[in-house]
Amino acid sequence: MGSWATFGGDLHLDLSAGRARGLGLRAALEDALRTAVREGRLGPGTRLPSSRALAADLGIARNTVAEAYTQLGAEGWLTSRQGSGTVVAERGEPQPAPPPPGVRPEPAVRHNLMPGSPDLSRFPRNAWLAATRRALATAPHEAFGLGDPRGRIELRRALAAYLARVRGVRTDPERLVVCSGYTQGLGLLCRALHEQGVRTVAVEEYGLPPQRAVIAEAGLGTVPLSLDEGGARTGELLGSPAGAAVLTPAHQFPTGVALRAARRATAVAWARATGGVVIEDDYDGEFRYDRQPLGAMQALDPERVVYAGTASKSLAPGIRMAWLALPGRLVEPVMRQKRLADGQSGAVEQLALAELITSGDLDRHIRRSRLQYRRRRDRLIEVLAERVPEVRVTGLSAGLSAVLELPPGSLGEEELLRQARWLGISLSVLSWCRASEAPPAADAPAALVVGYGTPADHAFPAALDALCTLLRL
Amino acid sequence: MGSWATFGGDLHLDLSAGRARGLGLRAALEDALRTAVREGRLGPGTRLPSSRALAADLGIARNTVAEAYTQLGAEGWLTSRQGSGTVVAERGEPQPAPPPPGVRPEPAVRHNLMPGSPDLSRFPRNAWLAATRRALATAPHEAFGLGDPRGRIELRRALAAYLARVRGVRTDPERLVVCSGYTQGLGLLCRALHEQGVRTVAVEEYGLPPQRAVIAEAGLGTVPLSLDEGGARTGELLGSPAGAAVLTPAHQFPTGVALRAARRATAVAWARATGGVVIEDDYDGEFRYDRQPLGAMQALDPERVVYAGTASKSLAPGIRMAWLALPGRLVEPVMRQKRLADGQSGAVEQLALAELITSGDLDRHIRRSRLQYRRRRDRLIEVLAERVPEVRVTGLSAGLSAVLELPPGSLGEEELLRQARWLGISLSVLSWCRASEAPPAADAPAALVVGYGTPADHAFPAALDALCTLLRL
Repeated sequence: MGSWATFGGDLHLDLSAGRARGLGLRAALEDALRTAVREGRLGPGTRLPSSRALAADLGIARNTVAEAYTQLGAEGWLTSRQGSGTVVAERGEPQPAPPPPGVRPEPAVRHNLMPGSPDLSRFPRNAWLAATRRALATAPHEAFGLGDPRGRIELRRALAAYLARVRGVRTDPERLVVCSGYTQGLGLLCRALHEQGVRTVAVEEYGLPPQRAVIAEAGLGTVPLSLDEGGARTGELLGSPAGAAVLTPAHQFPTGVALRAARRATAVAWARATGGVVIEDDYDGEFRYDRQPLGAMQALDPERVVYAGTASKSLAPGIRMAWLALPGRLVEPVMRQKRLADGQSGAVEQLALAELITSGDLDRHIRRSRLQYRRRRDRLIEVLAERVPEVRVTGLSAGLSAVLELPPGSLGEEELLRQARWLGISLSVLSWCRASEAPPAADAPAALVVGYGTPADHAFPAALDALCTLLRL
Repeated sequence: MGSWATFGGDLHLDLSAGRARGLGLRAALEDALRTAVREGRLGPGTRLPSSRALAADLGIARNTVAEAYTQLGAEGWLTSRQGSGTVVAERGEPQPAPPPPGVRPEPAVRHNLMPGSPDLSRFPRNAWLAATRRALATAPHEAFGLGDPRGRIELRRALAAYLARVRGVRTDPERLVVCSGYTQGLGLLCRALHEQGVRTVAVEEYGLPPQRAVIAEAGLGTVPLSLDEGGARTGELLGSPAGAAVLTPAHQFPTGVALRAARRATAVAWARATGGVVIEDDYDGEFRYDRQPLGAMQALDPERVVYAGTASKSLAPGIRMAWLALPGRLVEPVMRQKRLADGQSGAVEQLALAELITSGDLDRHIRRSRLQYRRRRDRLIEVLAERVPEVRVTGLSAGLSAVLELPPGSLGEEELLRQARWLGISLSVLSWCRASEAPPAADAPAALVVGYGTPADHAFPAALDALCTLLRL
C-alpha cells in the first residue's frame, strides 16, 4: 500500500477491452495505460502506483505490471525517476478543448460598473472561515444528511430573529425556506403558484430581465405595472389578470424609488380581495443611507406578502444564499418545489451563515460596507456634479446603483453602450431593464444604470473617471 | 457608536405608524418598541442600543429615547442592568409557532438502515475545513460573484482529471456542469431534453421514487425497463417511445447488479440510431468491493451518454454537490437551465471540493470509507447467515445497501414495515422502489432494501441486531 499512498488515489484501468480483442494480460494492461495517457486521463507528471500496488489492485502478477511499465517506458509513455517511482512522461502541450457549441467567453472588462453586485473584494473571507470552523465543530452528524427542504433549523432560527430585528419582518422558522439565491426562490414560488392556478404575474415596468425569464420558465405570463416617483402604480393590479405581483418596495430596481405607503396598502388590499400574493423582493434592504429606513412591506400582512431576502448584496452573490418568509398556506407547496429542485440548499454554508448572523459578524460587515458604499455614492454625486453637471443622478437614497439620465440631444443608449465597450466599461442602460412589451416614450431620455458598488475600492476612482469620459462624449 | 457596537446590529423601528395615528415622537417610539417586543422581533434578553446611539440613528433627541426607555421599564417591557445597559425583559416562555398546514415532523428512529445515505459521522470535517481555508485564501475576488453557470473552473478542471482517472470518464472542463445534487442535475437535463422535444424517459423498473417525480415535474413521462441479473434489459429501448434512458450501470439501485457489457452496447447503439440520450447515474461508483471495477459507460460514447456523478455517497448528501459530463450539444441547453434554476452552485463549496480533490484528501477519504463499508458488508453477510440463513442477500458487490429477500411464507412488506417501525428501524422495501405501474408478480418474495452504510460505526451492531430480530419475526 506504500506506493498507493504516495499515488494517493484510485486509477481506473480497463483491461477487458484489450482482453476482448484477444490480448494477453500484459498487452491488455499496456493498452489500457496507453489509452489512459492518450486520452489525458493520466496527465503528464502523474505518479503511477508501484508495480506491487497496481498488481494487487488488479489481481494480477507483479511481474506483469513491472514488464508493462518497462515496455511503456521504452515507448516513451512513462519515465522512471530515482526515488519518485514511475510517472507519466511529459509531452507537447495538450490542445485546449474547443468550447462546446453555443458557449462564448465574455470579453474582458476594465471598469466594472454593472449593477447587481456588491464589491466582491469586500467578501469577509476571515469571518466566513471562522463561521465555517464553528459550524463544522458543532454541527450534529445529521446536518450532513438530507433534511428539511426548508433548510437547517439553525439558520432559519437565526434568520427569523435577524429579519424581525433589522427589517421588521413578521415570520417564524417554520415559515422560512432557505433557497440557493433569489432566482431559485422566485422560481420555486412561481411553480408553486402555477400549481395553484396562477397564470399571470405583475412585474414592475423596469426590473432585472433574468427575473422575467424565470417567471416564464414556470409557465407564467407577466403584465407590467407602470412606475413613477412613488414606485409601482399598484392600483393597476385591480382588474388585471395577475394572481401575484413582484415588487421592490424598499428600493425599486433600477430606478431607486421607494414604494409609497398608500401604494403598499393598495397592493395588500388587492391581495386580500382577490386571493393574490405579493412577492416583496428586498434585494438590498440593508443598504439605505437615509435615516428612516422603510420596514418590510410583508409586516402589513404576512399571510398575503412573501418576503424574499438575499445575501447576494450584503455578502456576495457567489454564495447563493437567499430566503423566503412565506404565508402559511404556501409553505408546503414551496417545500415540495424545493424538494424537486435540489432537495435542500447546501448544509455547510447554511450553518456558516447562521453562525455569521448569531455572532454579530454579519451586522458588523454590513455596517462597514454601508459606510463605504455611502462614501462612494457621495463621491459619485460630487464628481458628476463637477464634471458632467448636465447629467441627472437619481435612485441614490439606498442600494448600490444609480440611474444617470442624460440631457436631450445626448448619445442614444445603443451608442453609449458601444462607446462604453470601447472604453472598457461594463454597465447597463435603462431600456435593458424594461419589462413592458410596449416601446418607451419617444422622448424618454437615454439613461445609464451604474453599479457604483461593484468595483473594488482601488478600482473605483479610475472607473468613475472612465464613466465621466463616457458621459462627456 | 459605542453602544451600537455592543448591541452589534441594526434595529428596525417604525415610528411612522404611531406618528400617523397622531402620537408624539416619544409615544410613537414607545409604541414601536412595544410592538417589536410583543411580536417577538426583539426577544427577551436582547440588549438595546444606548439612548444616545438610538437617538442618533433615528434623528431625534437623546432625551426622547431616554424617557421612552424609562417609561417602558416602568411598564415591564424593558429592564436596566448595571453595566449592561437596557435589555428586553424576560417574559413567560413564548409559545412555539404551530407548524404550517401540511408539514408534519418525522417520527424518531433508533436504527437508521434507510438506503441512500453514507455514514454521516464519517464526513471529513477537518479535511473539509482545511480545504475551505485554502480555497478562501487563494480564490480570486471574482469567485464570489456570479460566474459561469457550469460552476468554478477550478472544480471543473479537478473533476475532469479525477473522473478520467477514477471512472474512465472522457470529458473536459468545458463539458462539465456542477449541480446542487443529482436531483438538480437530472431536473436540468430533463428540462433541456423537453425543450428539444423529448417527452418520455425510460427508467429502470426499480429505482429511487423521487427521481420519477423530478422527471414528471419537467413534463416528461416514464416507461420502465425490466431488470434481471444482467441489469436493465436495454433491448426494450428499441421501439419504445423514450427519447432518453436513465441507467445505473455500475451498480443498479436497489438490486445491486451491474449492467452487462452487451446491454451497455445495446443502449449506446439505440442512442446513436435514434438520437436518444443515455443518462448514466453513477451514484456510488467509488464504492465497489470486487477487484475489477467497471469503468463508466460514458466512455463508450461521450456524445451519446451523459455521465452523472455526485459527492452524496463519497462525502455527504447535505453538501449538495454533483456534476454532469455532457455531450457537446447539451452543454448550452443545460447551462441555460442552470442559469434559470439558480444561476450557479455555491462558490465556496465548489472551491473547497476542488481543493479536496487536488490535495488527494478525497481519495484518502474514499479509500478509508471503502474499507469500513466493506467490513460492514462482510459483517452483515456473516450475521445474517448465522441468525437468519433462510434470508437471501443480494446486491453486495458494491455500494452501501443490500437487498434481503425473505423466503416464501414470510411476513409481507407492509407488515414488515409496521414491525420495523415498532422496533424503531428505518429501512425500505423493494416495492417502494418500483417504477412500473403494473403490480409485481404475485409470487414475488417480500424484500427489504437495507442501507448498511447509513448508521454510525458505534450504532451498527445494534442496528444489525434489531434487523435480525425483525427478520426472525
